[in-house]
Amino acid sequence: MQDLNRFISDGLLALDYKREPQGLYAPIAYTLESGGKRVRPMLALIAAQMCDGSLQTVLPAALALEVFHNFTLLHDDLMDNADTRRGKPTVHKKWNNNTAILSGDQMLIESYKIIQDIPSQYLSESMRLFTKMATEICEGQQYDIDYEKQSEVSIDEYINMIRLKTAVLPATSLQLGALISGANTDIQTTLYQIGIYLGLAFQLRDDYLDVYGNPETFGKNIGGDILDNKKTFIYIVAHHNANAEQNILLDKAFALTDPAQKIKEVTQLYTLTEADKMCLEQIDYYHQLALQQLNTLQIPEEKKTDLYNILQQLLKRDK
Amino acid sequence: MQDLNRFISDGLLALDYKREPQGLYAPIAYTLESGGKRVRPMLALIAAQMCDGSLQTVLPAALALEVFHNFTLLHDDLMDNADTRRGKPTVHKKWNNNTAILSGDQMLIESYKIIQDIPSQYLSESMRLFTKMATEICEGQQYDIDYEKQSEVSIDEYINMIRLKTAVLPATSLQLGALISGANTDIQTTLYQIGIYLGLAFQLRDDYLDVYGNPETFGKNIGGDILDNKKTFIYIVAHHNANAEQNILLDKAFALTDPAQKIKEVTQLYTLTEADKMCLEQIDYYHQLALQQLNTLQIPEEKKTDLYNILQQLLKRDK
Repeated sequence: MQDLNRFISDGLLALDYKREPQGLYAPIAYTLESGGKRVRPMLALIAAQMCDGSLQTVLPAALALEVFHNFTLLHDDLMDNADTRRGKPTVHKKWNNNTAILSGDQMLIESYKIIQDIPSQYLSESMRLFTKMATEICEGQQYDIDYEKQSEVSIDEYINMIRLKTAVLPATSLQLGALISGANTDIQTTLYQIGIYLGLAFQLRDDYLDVYGNPETFGKNIGGDILDNKKTFIYIVAHHNANAEQNILLDKAFALTDPAQKIKEVTQLYTLTEADKMCLEQIDYYHQLALQQLNTLQIPEEKKTDLYNILQQLLKRDK
Repeated sequence: MQDLNRFISDGLLALDYKREPQGLYAPIAYTLESGGKRVRPMLALIAAQMCDGSLQTVLPAALALEVFHNFTLLHDDLMDNADTRRGKPTVHKKWNNNTAILSGDQMLIESYKIIQDIPSQYLSESMRLFTKMATEICEGQQYDIDYEKQSEVSIDEYINMIRLKTAVLPATSLQLGALISGANTDIQTTLYQIGIYLGLAFQLRDDYLDVYGNPETFGKNIGGDILDNKKTFIYIVAHHNANAEQNILLDKAFALTDPAQKIKEVTQLYTLTEADKMCLEQIDYYHQLALQQLNTLQIPEEKKTDLYNILQQLLKRDK
């Protein structure tokens, strides 16, 4: 998988955003150089290997997925007014809001440009899947915004929101890798479903680490979601599990103005209501569902190792 | 052409943006319902008729061009912090900035979704042309932003900027209409070139009307570009033509704080330096070039009438 990482980095570098006008392209180069786990292109390439496809043939789709993902981060950071991303200033902080809007737009267009280099027999279907995914991610982002103002969000609503906002991207990455490698519809659909379970578990792991992560290893500040009053899985489950008295305490804790005190008291109540435990159980549940699907996948067992490993790695991570 | 207008309106209506989540789609419906001249889809359909194509087959491309155009207006209005568009509040004023960002992104994605419905034999080439156009429009927008801060902008730089920002869209509209109707490369290229000349003349007409338009018929407030110190064609030519004394007077006039006084004095200097006259000549120059290309076009003369008429209509307009 080390080799795949290198293959992806080289591919991104070859896109070469040292172009004019620099005001448009420099922020794109900056965003793509700033790293990240490259999970989505990795999944596309792993799917290609599983389906005896050519890495070179799947590469444009893999890169398009990574550029698209980074476009969503760029515009999300602007909408959230986030200061940093991957330890560096966000584009709207380093440049300005208008640069973040326009260079983000161009990144979205670039993702469509890059994916056009896949073989023509797969182009129409790939474009359809890619566009469906892009639409769902925008819908998920809208639900996320809506839920901030909505007084109660059910667990089902939350899971559907993160399915759209987060899980369809790894799912489509796996499916596109398989499709462009000539895999049949059954294999494509199963890989898509594995990606959905992976994405759901991945996001819940993120929710969990935001509260219980190790500040030394977790990239973001612990308790950020609590300070933002974000209705994460843990938040929703804690309110659901809490008795009348605990619900009052939760509301009081969320109303605290001292950040450290707020994080401390909310975290205690999360633990008291066993929201942490239920979150870990739910992660494990989706992990198991992903593994079950992987078991049923009609390809030789020895070809499943990389995807098996990446599931372990992403869902047991502490950063 | 009345029929084509109706055909386009019906097509846009059938896209049906009464979807969930409403927070994402209502601003898209609002933007598309707010009218406009529908020039770009009209050009695609006129090209289809010229090349004996089917309107129904070209319709997805025509609608994609209109949705894409409206996406650029939505994000441009946000970047310019414009209050109104077509007499109605802009999306970021009616909703908020984040809505304008996200619904704009989705409109861009929608344009790619819509264009996928063209026949598969034209998909790859159409996507390539559409994406090239989208890229150039973002580049043009970036140059426009850059030029606001640049002390001197040459006429060539300005023309190249509006070619990218404005002219490639009508050009690509004509070319796509021809391509999807099975026209050969010569016809496609000539129509593209006509669209470029049309677009350049159209933008210069806009620059002219912003200063010399009739407030009764022109949709926007007269003198808006002057108040914004915009380096339009007239601005650049006036500075180019002005003698030393007039250049000082121009700088003084642009430094005035009373809006009415500023518009009056700048306009007088524009007229004195004959920038108005040169602008009209330049419009006529591009109009003539477009007509020359139309003459050379290898299709029966009687099929050229609609495009001939739309050139007249757009370039002699006073609104």
